[in-house]
Amino acid sequence: MVAPLGDFSRLCIHTMTTKPWSLREAALAYAKAGVPGITVWRQHLEPQGLDESASILQNSGLEMVSLCRGGFFPAATERARQKTIDDNRRTIDEAAAIGAPLVVLVCGAVPGLPLNEARKQILDGIAATLPHAEQAGVRLSIEPLHPMYADSRSAVNTLGQANDMIETLASPWIGATVDVYHLWWDPALEAEIKRAGPSILSFHVSDWRTPTRDMLNDRGLMGEGCIPIRGIRSWVESTGFAGYVEVEIFSNEYWAWDQSNYLAQIKRAFLEYC
Amino acid sequence: MVAPLGDFSRLCIHTMTTKPWSLREAALAYAKAGVPGITVWRQHLEPQGLDESASILQNSGLEMVSLCRGGFFPAATERARQKTIDDNRRTIDEAAAIGAPLVVLVCGAVPGLPLNEARKQILDGIAATLPHAEQAGVRLSIEPLHPMYADSRSAVNTLGQANDMIETLASPWIGATVDVYHLWWDPALEAEIKRAGPSILSFHVSDWRTPTRDMLNDRGLMGEGCIPIRGIRSWVESTGFAGYVEVEIFSNEYWAWDQSNYLAQIKRAFLEYC
Repeated sequence: MVAPLGDFSRLCIHTMTTKPWSLREAALAYAKAGVPGITVWRQHLEPQGLDESASILQNSGLEMVSLCRGGFFPAATERARQKTIDDNRRTIDEAAAIGAPLVVLVCGAVPGLPLNEARKQILDGIAATLPHAEQAGVRLSIEPLHPMYADSRSAVNTLGQANDMIETLASPWIGATVDVYHLWWDPALEAEIKRAGPSILSFHVSDWRTPTRDMLNDRGLMGEGCIPIRGIRSWVESTGFAGYVEVEIFSNEYWAWDQSNYLAQIKRAFLEYC
Repeated sequence: MVAPLGDFSRLCIHTMTTKPWSLREAALAYAKAGVPGITVWRQHLEPQGLDESASILQNSGLEMVSLCRGGFFPAATERARQKTIDDNRRTIDEAAAIGAPLVVLVCGAVPGLPLNEARKQILDGIAATLPHAEQAGVRLSIEPLHPMYADSRSAVNTLGQANDMIETLASPWIGATVDVYHLWWDPALEAEIKRAGPSILSFHVSDWRTPTRDMLNDRGLMGEGCIPIRGIRSWVESTGFAGYVEVEIFSNEYWAWDQSNYLAQIKRAFLEYC
């Protein structure tokens, strides 16, 4: 088991974690709190547009870890699928514009579309997007989502599936994101992390609450739930991964808090449980 | 793909599906509606006790398909684990008393207990219970639960894990239950159904709603969601399975309906979507 992190040098926070804050508020607050890394969600770029967003981020001194999120490849029609590929190319351009080296992919699913068809469309969609990623110098990362999102958010639900896709795509521009919330239950997780090896491009943390009162927005702060976060980090770091530990928490409860107080709690939980 | 079922000869309903009904009400209503099979939940035995329950069921003319549920093996202390084994032996005795040939196991999980430890305790607990099952002439069936229940209900979350356990236990008295709600998302499902072969002892149906508004009690009627029920039944029947198709729906919404109207809808959905 790896040692606790000891300091904040590897702490990154997702702007969705502190969703009530604008990009400017989040960037200022993270920098002031000594949080070195930021992962930006696209909806936090929209209000002030891309140029101003890039300037806010550049002036913040924060390291851009990734842009969330691309993906959502499966669709009912060929035309709709082409639109998703265009949108993913735009997302890659946005990442390049703000200096983010990585776009995280939530791969998508459509209720009623057979999962094997959705999975094929995801692979095709990523393949069609990869040349643009390479051209922009931005990596793409498949984030497998918990099986409870297989109906409408992602047909990629295990790291094993992501690894299969990465092997098929055979490009240094595609990798995987390990999010403990989505993957902690998987009996194959340790083996699949080892198999992924240097393909692991990012690492997300939060916790699983018992009971979970909302399927989307009731994630816990690290330490509040049953996920063996440090154990999973040990597996991930055994592959050589030394990147940021990204705090990504969707929580109606915490979004209602004073976000500065919440940020202090995130820092405490990061040292204690990651 | 198998043909639609065509008639009700393989329809079984779980008493929890029509939870507001007492055992007597459910047995009368199912029999009157031409539903031949019943799976009884233990809480429907309690109000009138075992002897009267057995008499109700015997007089109903219904076929006893299984008793739900045993399991919940993992626990914090050796003493508590012994209690769960005693309780499982009692459950087996109840099954024998009402003429049920099968006890379905929801294997259990304890928040914070590492999953690999919980999985070991489950295997040990089943092994300790099996001789009693054999003696009573009652089979045990491991029902893998959806990964969203890995925190507190079951650390067995894929059919692959159940198959591993069944291979280790190597007894004709242990098998697996395929419940489409828990397993539909799994990319390995078809292969694991084939691997399970004659170990598949029962088959449960319902549907996955989008959105799912409650993690426990918002299952859909067959056809209301995205699960390829008939496709999964095809895989299951390729193994030679010809048993009941058991309707197991937990739904706050449907429990609030007039249960006779609901039963009519179950029959309609059974013919149309199973």
